[in-house]
Amino acid sequence: MSCVFCKIANGEIPSISVYEDESFKVIMDINPANLGHCLVICKEHYANIFEMPSELTAKAFAVAKKVAGAVKEATDCDGINILQNNGEIAGQTVFHFHIHILPRVEGDLVNIHFGGFNAEEDMIKQIAEDIKNKL
Amino acid sequence: MSCVFCKIANGEIPSISVYEDESFKVIMDINPANLGHCLVICKEHYANIFEMPSELTAKAFAVAKKVAGAVKEATDCDGINILQNNGEIAGQTVFHFHIHILPRVEGDLVNIHFGGFNAEEDMIKQIAEDIKNKL
Repeated sequence: MSCVFCKIANGEIPSISVYEDESFKVIMDINPANLGHCLVICKEHYANIFEMPSELTAKAFAVAKKVAGAVKEATDCDGINILQNNGEIAGQTVFHFHIHILPRVEGDLVNIHFGGFNAEEDMIKQIAEDIKNKL
Repeated sequence: MSCVFCKIANGEIPSISVYEDESFKVIMDINPANLGHCLVICKEHYANIFEMPSELTAKAFAVAKKVAGAVKEATDCDGINILQNNGEIAGQTVFHFHIHILPRVEGDLVNIHFGGFNAEEDMIKQIAEDIKNKL
């Protein structure tokens, strides 16, 4: 087992933890985007959201919500991004499911921006049909 | 009621929907970041994750996971960001809880980047204590 988040989850690698239950550990990111940046880590190894059971995903985000509230109070930040990346192209660097809780403050170094893609309404309607067919 | 997502949820404003249940509607973003970009909208009005009941938050992300799997299959994208913004500073533009399902492809116009904040370990340990005290 060489996964760094598995090692953190089982205590083989030390971490600064703020929450733990039978399924999750919430740790401080050691390279935080802002003070209070933490990660909800699943104790079981799942590479990403697609591999996880639905119920466990739901529980993970309930933990994220709970901790995000505490982060907001503790840091007095102006807002919070809840971000969960799947795949290298999406910015995932550790291939073990985790959720970023990202407190945001004025003038911070976090950049989350998207836009400028031009889609015709017909294209959107077509992909919506395709998505419905996969559900 | 002047909230645009309330109006979309109750059908007062038309939308291209891919999923609906008693609590949520999933619609195509009309200004998509990429083809397949959709939004999980809560039918009840909550401004953000902090205002929502925990169980409803859990259900919202279980819906996001389900739809994200279908988006991945339908678009054949390389990865997906699950993003939920709270507060203007975090990029929230409609103040009604929603989750972005953002398919990612090579060379797209999505930019999610953070780093460069320098935190001493002592600062991280202190804020971790503060967070634990708020939990």
